[in-house]
Amino acid sequence: MKYSAIPTAQSIVQHCQAKNISNIVISPGSRNAPLTIAFAENPFFNCYSIVDERCAAFFALGMAQQLQVPVVVLCTSGSALLNYYPALAEAYFSNIPLVVISADRPIYKLGIGDGQTINQQNVFKNHIGYSANLKQDVSHATEKVLHYKPEWIIDENVSEVQQKIQSYNDVELNHAFEIAMNLNHPVHINAPFEEPLYNTLTENIITPRIDAVKVGEVTQPNIEYHKNIWNIAVRKMILVGVSTPGTVKDYILEHLANDPSVLVLTETTSNIHHPNFFNSIDSLIAPIDMHENKFEQFNQLQPDVLVTFGGLIVSKKVKAFLRKYKPEHHWHIGGQQANDTFFCLEEHIKVSVNTFFDKMYADSIVLKSDYFEKWNQVKQKFEQKRDLYLKEIPFSDFLAFSEILKSVPNEYMLQLANSSTIRYTQLFNFNTTLKVFCNRGTSGIDGSTSTAIGASIGNNSPTLFITGDLSFFYDSNALWNNYIKSNFRIIVINNKGGGIFRILPGKENSDVFETYFETRHTLTAEHLCSMYGLDYRKAKSTQELQDELSYFFKESARPQLLEITTPALKNDKILIDYFRFIS
Amino acid sequence: MKYSAIPTAQSIVQHCQAKNISNIVISPGSRNAPLTIAFAENPFFNCYSIVDERCAAFFALGMAQQLQVPVVVLCTSGSALLNYYPALAEAYFSNIPLVVISADRPIYKLGIGDGQTINQQNVFKNHIGYSANLKQDVSHATEKVLHYKPEWIIDENVSEVQQKIQSYNDVELNHAFEIAMNLNHPVHINAPFEEPLYNTLTENIITPRIDAVKVGEVTQPNIEYHKNIWNIAVRKMILVGVSTPGTVKDYILEHLANDPSVLVLTETTSNIHHPNFFNSIDSLIAPIDMHENKFEQFNQLQPDVLVTFGGLIVSKKVKAFLRKYKPEHHWHIGGQQANDTFFCLEEHIKVSVNTFFDKMYADSIVLKSDYFEKWNQVKQKFEQKRDLYLKEIPFSDFLAFSEILKSVPNEYMLQLANSSTIRYTQLFNFNTTLKVFCNRGTSGIDGSTSTAIGASIGNNSPTLFITGDLSFFYDSNALWNNYIKSNFRIIVINNKGGGIFRILPGKENSDVFETYFETRHTLTAEHLCSMYGLDYRKAKSTQELQDELSYFFKESARPQLLEITTPALKNDKILIDYFRFIS
Repeated sequence: MKYSAIPTAQSIVQHCQAKNISNIVISPGSRNAPLTIAFAENPFFNCYSIVDERCAAFFALGMAQQLQVPVVVLCTSGSALLNYYPALAEAYFSNIPLVVISADRPIYKLGIGDGQTINQQNVFKNHIGYSANLKQDVSHATEKVLHYKPEWIIDENVSEVQQKIQSYNDVELNHAFEIAMNLNHPVHINAPFEEPLYNTLTENIITPRIDAVKVGEVTQPNIEYHKNIWNIAVRKMILVGVSTPGTVKDYILEHLANDPSVLVLTETTSNIHHPNFFNSIDSLIAPIDMHENKFEQFNQLQPDVLVTFGGLIVSKKVKAFLRKYKPEHHWHIGGQQANDTFFCLEEHIKVSVNTFFDKMYADSIVLKSDYFEKWNQVKQKFEQKRDLYLKEIPFSDFLAFSEILKSVPNEYMLQLANSSTIRYTQLFNFNTTLKVFCNRGTSGIDGSTSTAIGASIGNNSPTLFITGDLSFFYDSNALWNNYIKSNFRIIVINNKGGGIFRILPGKENSDVFETYFETRHTLTAEHLCSMYGLDYRKAKSTQELQDELSYFFKESARPQLLEITTPALKNDKILIDYFRFIS
Repeated sequence: MKYSAIPTAQSIVQHCQAKNISNIVISPGSRNAPLTIAFAENPFFNCYSIVDERCAAFFALGMAQQLQVPVVVLCTSGSALLNYYPALAEAYFSNIPLVVISADRPIYKLGIGDGQTINQQNVFKNHIGYSANLKQDVSHATEKVLHYKPEWIIDENVSEVQQKIQSYNDVELNHAFEIAMNLNHPVHINAPFEEPLYNTLTENIITPRIDAVKVGEVTQPNIEYHKNIWNIAVRKMILVGVSTPGTVKDYILEHLANDPSVLVLTETTSNIHHPNFFNSIDSLIAPIDMHENKFEQFNQLQPDVLVTFGGLIVSKKVKAFLRKYKPEHHWHIGGQQANDTFFCLEEHIKVSVNTFFDKMYADSIVLKSDYFEKWNQVKQKFEQKRDLYLKEIPFSDFLAFSEILKSVPNEYMLQLANSSTIRYTQLFNFNTTLKVFCNRGTSGIDGSTSTAIGASIGNNSPTLFITGDLSFFYDSNALWNNYIKSNFRIIVINNKGGGIFRILPGKENSDVFETYFETRHTLTAEHLCSMYGLDYRKAKSTQELQDELSYFFKESARPQLLEITTPALKNDKILIDYFRFIS
């Protein structure tokens, strides 16, 4: 086996191995050669080569989203690193432990006009769990010491200096990995390397000090106070943000589903299911807003207690509702942080969701309440009406989503792009064996395809990725990827522009609207499929769509992409009319 | 005409108009709607719509590179902004006044789990001339005041508060534009907007306080000292970095070209020409390094005085040479900053290049020196040998560049991608009427195509863009652009991977090398051309290349792309042998 001759490279690689971080996504470069060689030559690591760093980072994010362990992205010095930023911010707000490792020029070559040299230290300051700015080795290139003078080493000899540098770097590395592994924060490790970069050895010459990752002590909070309130609250709303499948135990879901004082609102990304849960929040709330006695209705929906868990909430309507009709108590359960999304957060209760509800339902009395029943009737009504509506409307985004979601086979992973895709998906019931994910940390359209491909590597389930046209073309380089599985499926809903802008209040039809908001285009995904070796299928009517979907998920030699063309000018009206129809 | 109803949006637009900043590159979004509407509805502005913010920013960079005035890029809140970072860093190190304007959520909605919300304030801190963090208006949405409490406004009434906010924002805006216009630094203006976002008025309701841009007072430095040294130095080297065409007056070029004690080394990006100048630095230096008495040769090349001007230097060989054979005096002339590239900078002389040389050549005596003559003979020799070498070698990157550069018509703008492209171009003489540009600030491969397209908008010359395959595919979204002129020309040198890695010292042929460094692929540009409406041509031999080039530059209805396939496994040897051959 080969090892880089550079001590810091050896150290980084040994830290990763000791901490069982085995997935490394590498973008080409020369400055990062010591690490590229060290990772790629070591069979412990699974390395992936992706050229475009923006895609590479989202790909790694997708892997880490599924594996729930740190995944490394490694790049050379210069602007390469900055292309990681969109994925890094997503990781930051979605609590995904992306580990960015950037090679850097030696410190004496910064700011003197060398190529591919930027100010890398702390460059992600606004969105990072920790920035480890490693110091540069001196031992392997002693003649460079004169150029490289950390203030505290001037008068010492080279081997003592190198000892100190190694110790310093070990402390930094231990700390960075600690943050990534304990808090699920992304971290940035910046490692300056001096030339020669490509030299290797047959064994490591250094043994870094690697600390075991400390598991933070958890003090169990006292939740007697909450239980007392829980036990008398006749209107309790549970709102579930982005969550991993399996977060909540089945018997707890049953407790919640059968408690007449509890309304459980879920989103596509909540990954919990029960027939008694409300999985189309907007279908519940939008009609009330059109109701003649809407204030009374909203008053009846307003909870006494709001319990949230999981990540960010997609539904704008539930945010607007809860910000206006605030609960008396809002508790957020579990996780690293709690967002005061509704401006009324009372407490972040740092216990697991299961522990919390175990406590709430321990020897609890069943409260009399018509809270669930009243809204369940509303729900049944809109579900019936939705079925009717689907029979009435022409081919459109709305209809296409309904057809797609009916057709996805059991146990698929469903990856959703942002914007219209996630919002439409929220409106329908679908197969509860699906696991659903979407980059809701920043809700960007910039890396959904790459994330989905990465996720499909990190999970054995076959994957369907649904995306809009702008989001798909934005991340077209995602397909420049040698690791796309033959069972990977992409559906592009192509409505020839940013359809979501037609739905937003305040827009008007004009050249300015079409050019700068909707950004009309005539592109299709066909050429990209030819270029990158995906099978291309298309549909532009209900019949064609049903036909295509009937064999789209069957085994195939190559990954498949289905492009569905919908009528840009009808989609918005059909969506808005849906809410009127069910109200 | 329509104006946004939001005061800060009105203010920003009026500042731009007053400062004659008329080019606005807009990416779609809702939060930035107030500015999108205000810019797009005002005929003073030329607006461009580009979806992928990474491309949008490089496109704007290219325009600003040519126009030499600020160009605005405008985006919505969230990760959109982060996609600007690669271009912004390039602007920072290339002194290009890119003005980034980002819409932001109102301050009370930051950090509470809303969508498309990140920490935008000062996010570009490591690479920005100024970050103007504007405050949010209160007047148009007074009910929101309770949420929005800057510490200094609590007890005042809304209109007084709004007055203060406007004044604060005006100061920030004036300062940001001052920095952009006087120092050519990129700046970031972050503007939080509250809903409703789409409301318009028929006239502006506010009149911002707009300061005239102050022109900094320049104290003329005393350069008598320098002149005394200049007058006795028998070996003076002038090394010219990235420069705009026309920077140096013709008679000064003549002075320099005819001074026997002066050696002028230029690069492709220097944009100054004279038969007596040395425009292939590597062809001069590399052979010396192979010479048996190289130390003596280098000693004879070592200058007493080194004068540099312009931006960054491409040639690694001249850097290595000057770092080892340091001049006694290194002066950098003009510009906002001086890099100590060779670790021996004596002084940054802040006068224009013309002023400096006027002074040096005022009543100067002609020194006796054989400095020019000795190296001119070397140059003549390698130029002859290069011609011979070109007749001997098979089709390759080296030969392709020679053919391409011979064929470019007069007065073209030549835009070069980084990595191999710029380095090969450095080796040849070419048409001196060409204006040559390359993103050397960060030397990234990430946005060269977008930059070239933007530059072609900012300049009336027809444009040829030359790029390698990785660089081209990296920025493939550049072609998702409605503004590509029919006279725009792209040449892709496709050697099936990162050919530059084969040239670097230390590499060895292995799977690891091919996968993680060279990143081998089998892609061509053909599908992208079909997708985006460019004519596609190809060549894979000298004859085919000559045939294609004979009509490639002729007028056409659509932009043209010529893809040249060269043999990956031969290119590196042919390049290395070139330096041996001429030595």
